[in-house]
Amino acid sequence: MSQRSRQIPEATVARLPVYLRSLAELVDEKTSTVSSERLAEMAGVNAAKVRKDLSYLGSYGTRGVGYDVEYLLFQMSRELGLTHDWPVAIVGAGNLGSALANYGGFTQRGFPVVAMFDSDRQKVDNLIHGVRVFHTDDLASTASKLGVGIGVIATPASAAQDAADKLVAGGVGSILNFAPTVISVPEGVSLRKVDLALELQILSFYQEHRESSE
Amino acid sequence: MSQRSRQIPEATVARLPVYLRSLAELVDEKTSTVSSERLAEMAGVNAAKVRKDLSYLGSYGTRGVGYDVEYLLFQMSRELGLTHDWPVAIVGAGNLGSALANYGGFTQRGFPVVAMFDSDRQKVDNLIHGVRVFHTDDLASTASKLGVGIGVIATPASAAQDAADKLVAGGVGSILNFAPTVISVPEGVSLRKVDLALELQILSFYQEHRESSE
Repeated sequence: MSQRSRQIPEATVARLPVYLRSLAELVDEKTSTVSSERLAEMAGVNAAKVRKDLSYLGSYGTRGVGYDVEYLLFQMSRELGLTHDWPVAIVGAGNLGSALANYGGFTQRGFPVVAMFDSDRQKVDNLIHGVRVFHTDDLASTASKLGVGIGVIATPASAAQDAADKLVAGGVGSILNFAPTVISVPEGVSLRKVDLALELQILSFYQEHRESSE
Repeated sequence: MSQRSRQIPEATVARLPVYLRSLAELVDEKTSTVSSERLAEMAGVNAAKVRKDLSYLGSYGTRGVGYDVEYLLFQMSRELGLTHDWPVAIVGAGNLGSALANYGGFTQRGFPVVAMFDSDRQKVDNLIHGVRVFHTDDLASTASKLGVGIGVIATPASAAQDAADKLVAGGVGSILNFAPTVISVPEGVSLRKVDLALELQILSFYQEHRESSE
């Protein structure tokens, strides 16, 4: 299963967490089986896509019965690497970094924040929501020592590439970038980007064109 | 141009803000023309895609010269509805909402935060980074009075649908949801979603499968 899953298309990977959340809700409701139609409705996609996506995990369901919720949840968690914790480091201890350190979803979903980094010496050794702040000069060595798997960049745009370089030097294999700039990482390092203003600009496009078409 | 642009594919719309940022950098560098290759490199896509995307705006560049940077920036801003401000309201005055209220990129890029809303009466009338907090009971009427165009949901998952309903009742046409849950809005309302833990789960997938393949 693990071998096969390396060929899972990117778009399917991006939907797995959405299915995971729906399955967790079903477990909470003590629902033991689910149809692809119901799962599709919960996840906001169509049923054919759900069946296709789940087939990549080797899950085909039972005709007339559907999928076993608990087993599918287990399979999905294993594929997503959620059966163990991934230590997270946040670079940038400003407002956004602090909000992220306190984002309940992280620890609860297996992403404990183990360190924060900032270039401001005044912040070093402070605890932010229980997480210790280190100086960015010590980023690579500290990330390596703490076994950080995922680095979150919450710095200003001008400091983002340096943060990425230091994370990579510290052996961090995955980076989530919140800074509003394009950064580059070596082959083999995973990079995803969340640009908050960009999301607003996309909404603005639709807002603009709706109003002008009314 | 505005008429034509209503048929721009979603994926192209999502890239326009990325080009916009690259063009703004070129203006800062006092570069007056740019090739599709250079713009492609800055935006992290291929040159053929850049030419296709820009053709939707009616921009074709000049052979051997490229695109006029300032004019393209103007066209892009107009398409994205960035030639005027879009007032933003943030629902949820917790850590994330507060970080967003202070996110420099918003006001600076034409998205002034004009109000925050929270269900905690203790927070009502507080100023968070200069933005006044109102009670969520007054959301629809206040959003309507202030002409809010975009609503940002930064509440816990359990309060997100209610926040969306109230924003829609207040005439807000675009919603950006940070709460880790699926919400529904009526046809004609634009909805985008940023799920921070989901981004980490996607990274975790790649991290897991890289490690197991080594």
